[in-house]
Amino acid sequence: MKILLDSSGLDNGFETAVEAGKLAKEKMNLDIAVVGLPEIESAVKSAGLDFEPAFSEITPFDENPSLAIRRKKDSTINVGLNLLKAGKYDAFVSGGNTGAVLAGGMLIVGRINGVKRAALTGIVPSKNGPFILVDIGATADATPEMLLSFAIMASKYAKEVLGIDNPRVSLLSNGVEEHKGNEATKAANKLFKESNFNFIGNMEARDIFEGNTDILVTDGFAGNIMVKALEGEFLYVNYILKEAAKDNFIAKIGLGLAKKTMKKKFRVLDATKFGGVPLLGLKQPVIKAHGNSNVEAYYNSISVAKKVVETDMTKKIENAFKGEVYE
Amino acid sequence: MKILLDSSGLDNGFETAVEAGKLAKEKMNLDIAVVGLPEIESAVKSAGLDFEPAFSEITPFDENPSLAIRRKKDSTINVGLNLLKAGKYDAFVSGGNTGAVLAGGMLIVGRINGVKRAALTGIVPSKNGPFILVDIGATADATPEMLLSFAIMASKYAKEVLGIDNPRVSLLSNGVEEHKGNEATKAANKLFKESNFNFIGNMEARDIFEGNTDILVTDGFAGNIMVKALEGEFLYVNYILKEAAKDNFIAKIGLGLAKKTMKKKFRVLDATKFGGVPLLGLKQPVIKAHGNSNVEAYYNSISVAKKVVETDMTKKIENAFKGEVYE
Repeated sequence: MKILLDSSGLDNGFETAVEAGKLAKEKMNLDIAVVGLPEIESAVKSAGLDFEPAFSEITPFDENPSLAIRRKKDSTINVGLNLLKAGKYDAFVSGGNTGAVLAGGMLIVGRINGVKRAALTGIVPSKNGPFILVDIGATADATPEMLLSFAIMASKYAKEVLGIDNPRVSLLSNGVEEHKGNEATKAANKLFKESNFNFIGNMEARDIFEGNTDILVTDGFAGNIMVKALEGEFLYVNYILKEAAKDNFIAKIGLGLAKKTMKKKFRVLDATKFGGVPLLGLKQPVIKAHGNSNVEAYYNSISVAKKVVETDMTKKIENAFKGEVYE
Repeated sequence: MKILLDSSGLDNGFETAVEAGKLAKEKMNLDIAVVGLPEIESAVKSAGLDFEPAFSEITPFDENPSLAIRRKKDSTINVGLNLLKAGKYDAFVSGGNTGAVLAGGMLIVGRINGVKRAALTGIVPSKNGPFILVDIGATADATPEMLLSFAIMASKYAKEVLGIDNPRVSLLSNGVEEHKGNEATKAANKLFKESNFNFIGNMEARDIFEGNTDILVTDGFAGNIMVKALEGEFLYVNYILKEAAKDNFIAKIGLGLAKKTMKKKFRVLDATKFGGVPLLGLKQPVIKAHGNSNVEAYYNSISVAKKVVETDMTKKIENAFKGEVYE
């Protein structure tokens, strides 16, 4: 299996991809290549990895990712996706500009027949472990049918890659009752009830941490807002704790003592520690890692890529949209 | 000034309203009455407050609040809103079923001319103190024009009741760039830019805690999801801290030492500690208190009611919708 890693857009530098790739080659016995600017070639090769040259980067600060993908043909993301499309690699992992990876994925790799929109999945923690949130920003205005397709794709992902049997699917709404929600959500509730996947009903945002669902479906606007608000609150909680330590000496001592355990426990709330997620609905495996990834998180993203390839998830989503019986 | 308090729907019992009312009468020199079932009459009168009888309650568990308002004509909410409409009181404060108070407010008290939809405001903490989030659930599908009206009303509320000069208005979106957002948000961005209020641009949910806005506008679907997700995460953080103390003895000692200061600091994240918020767009002052209110929070809701009446906020919103110059 050959996996291509994007070296661009990483907060901790291209070294994150190189070190994670080296680790993945050793531990998972994968062929790993890194796509990057010529100046990183020697570092990549010293790590025992293959190198693919690119001549520009799309940064997280490129304001219009679709435009950037169209213009910067020689960017790491464009080069990487084209090599994936050409069949030289089995999967592409990127911690780069999310919008650019998504736009490039749709433009270069293309959507599975029958999939109206690709979806971006997020991972949200809960008392019973993380669950999948979809969509977190690919499709701001989702029709009920698009929401249905997100649920179908995420169910395949949960089953094949995460190994969850008969994954539970919920629909995010402003109330658990069927008559609650915006128009698209209310119509989606009807479609979900007629579907073959394991729909367990609407869920309110207050209850997401209880761990009662495997998949939570919503449009890319509400999903993006929710997941970013949760990230913001996590940072704010850390800020408040620091303020508490500053204000009060006893609190400082206490928090000092509890720090190690708290840090360990709070890890579940830190989005940057999660591995990557596949873009659902593309014809070939593209895995989005967090730009904040450390080596461990990037390594986890590579193992997600491995699992997506091994289980032939893309093919299974394709089949689901060919009218085959959806299990 | 005569203020009527609803005794229904309070997690800590009708006593919360009675005690807060007693306190408000003493400290703010207000005429206070409580509407409730006949069995609480003596308790209300012993506290030195007036009593208004009702014969049923709409509970937070009534699944269809609009239906409940139509059917339970003798409920505390219906009786209270009718007494407000009749002019016997200057404001109505309720910690009861939010949907019922909203539906009843629109049905019985009525909307200000020109206001298409009433809006429910929420209060969200930040590093520079709380700001106003609107709408948090009254209008799941908001048109750009409705979002504009929410911004106008919230600006009046912020200026008149909260005393903020030239309040900053932001639009919640999945990106700070103008071209980001769902269709309604993108169109609202254009309307906001042409408006007379102090629009400072789109805001991402990750940045809401930085304290850079006074008002954050969104539709009732995304707003409800965001505010409930934040509540859920606050509860989850508390759960994680308890787990940390259980798992590790040193952490338990440390958190024990830091507890008092942390509790004080974390208060800002606890939605139940905030005072009430006015329903924006109704012809008369209706203030929604949190069902979880303790006496202090309910008292704060009464002082919000006082401020709304004193500043004639309702009239000022009415004027803003009469085509007067909006400051």
